[in-house]
Amino acid sequence: MSSRAVPPAVAPIAGAAGNLAASLLQARPLTKDAFAPFGQVIELEGARQFDINDGTTRRFHDLAKIDTLADGGRPIVSLFRAQPRAEPVRLALMERHPLGSQAFIPLAARSYFVVVAPDAGGRPGPLQAFFTTGWQGVNYDRNTWHHPLLAVDEVSDFIVVDRGGEGHNLEEWPLADPPALRRP
Amino acid sequence: MSSRAVPPAVAPIAGAAGNLAASLLQARPLTKDAFAPFGQVIELEGARQFDINDGTTRRFHDLAKIDTLADGGRPIVSLFRAQPRAEPVRLALMERHPLGSQAFIPLAARSYFVVVAPDAGGRPGPLQAFFTTGWQGVNYDRNTWHHPLLAVDEVSDFIVVDRGGEGHNLEEWPLADPPALRRP
Repeated sequence: MSSRAVPPAVAPIAGAAGNLAASLLQARPLTKDAFAPFGQVIELEGARQFDINDGTTRRFHDLAKIDTLADGGRPIVSLFRAQPRAEPVRLALMERHPLGSQAFIPLAARSYFVVVAPDAGGRPGPLQAFFTTGWQGVNYDRNTWHHPLLAVDEVSDFIVVDRGGEGHNLEEWPLADPPALRRP
Repeated sequence: MSSRAVPPAVAPIAGAAGNLAASLLQARPLTKDAFAPFGQVIELEGARQFDINDGTTRRFHDLAKIDTLADGGRPIVSLFRAQPRAEPVRLALMERHPLGSQAFIPLAARSYFVVVAPDAGGRPGPLQAFFTTGWQGVNYDRNTWHHPLLAVDEVSDFIVVDRGGEGHNLEEWPLADPPALRRP
């Protein structure tokens, strides 16, 4: 396994002058099934739901597996304001959080990229890229390789539920020959 | 202390025919200071913030005191879809969660009512009403009396972070002579 992650979906990009600027990583629409090895898709479709408050409110219940208590950790709620990336989006590095899950919940129903990878002996294996449809969030399971937030089109706000507390909770893996992303 | 909560802001409503239909509870704009006895206002102004992800994202950090671990509890993330109340909004009951905090984070920057009360010997004391301005969420501290969600104008979605797990985590207190809410 080389340090460069080369999934089957990667193909060379021919630039305007025909040069091979970067390989291409084709994103797929984000679905619960495809994302299951990496965490949960936070969405209303298929969620357990019921009426509360005398029928005035519908509760879509328990949408993610929050896992933030290792080594004295606690759950924290933050807001991430992401600048939109220019396309084609060029990836930079993968990271993971050994001590906690990390949920990203968009305020708007605006699509963004999600890039994950299985672990391959302590480094990211073949990258998998997704593109959200409608209102979808993701919760990365603890210690799951993922790319930092990849908004496109507009400044995008996300509620983030992750771990606070002491301890080494970040590993990064720069991508030596990073591919560019393509929307579905 | 009677079971009817009568804060100083309550005044009789004169109906069209001059009848006293309900008392009025005047809402104030929601601010951190005024809400401090009941929990935290979740907002960007005044939040600890810093750039992450090579400057592409700003993190507004740790916006609420999530307190969901009592008696084997765990943090859960849900979405509440609230139907708008007709105005004037008539209150119904107060409730509290003895085992955990409960955060409401709106997806949209749309105003809604927040009604809380100090505890007065196991029942809600004088009600205090707030109306949000811009994008503001609230986190009710554990065991804080509050009214169920009070959206107005449009169907409104909220991310809710509260406690999952066994145990008796709900107390309700019907309001015998509930006031109606007035916007600031």
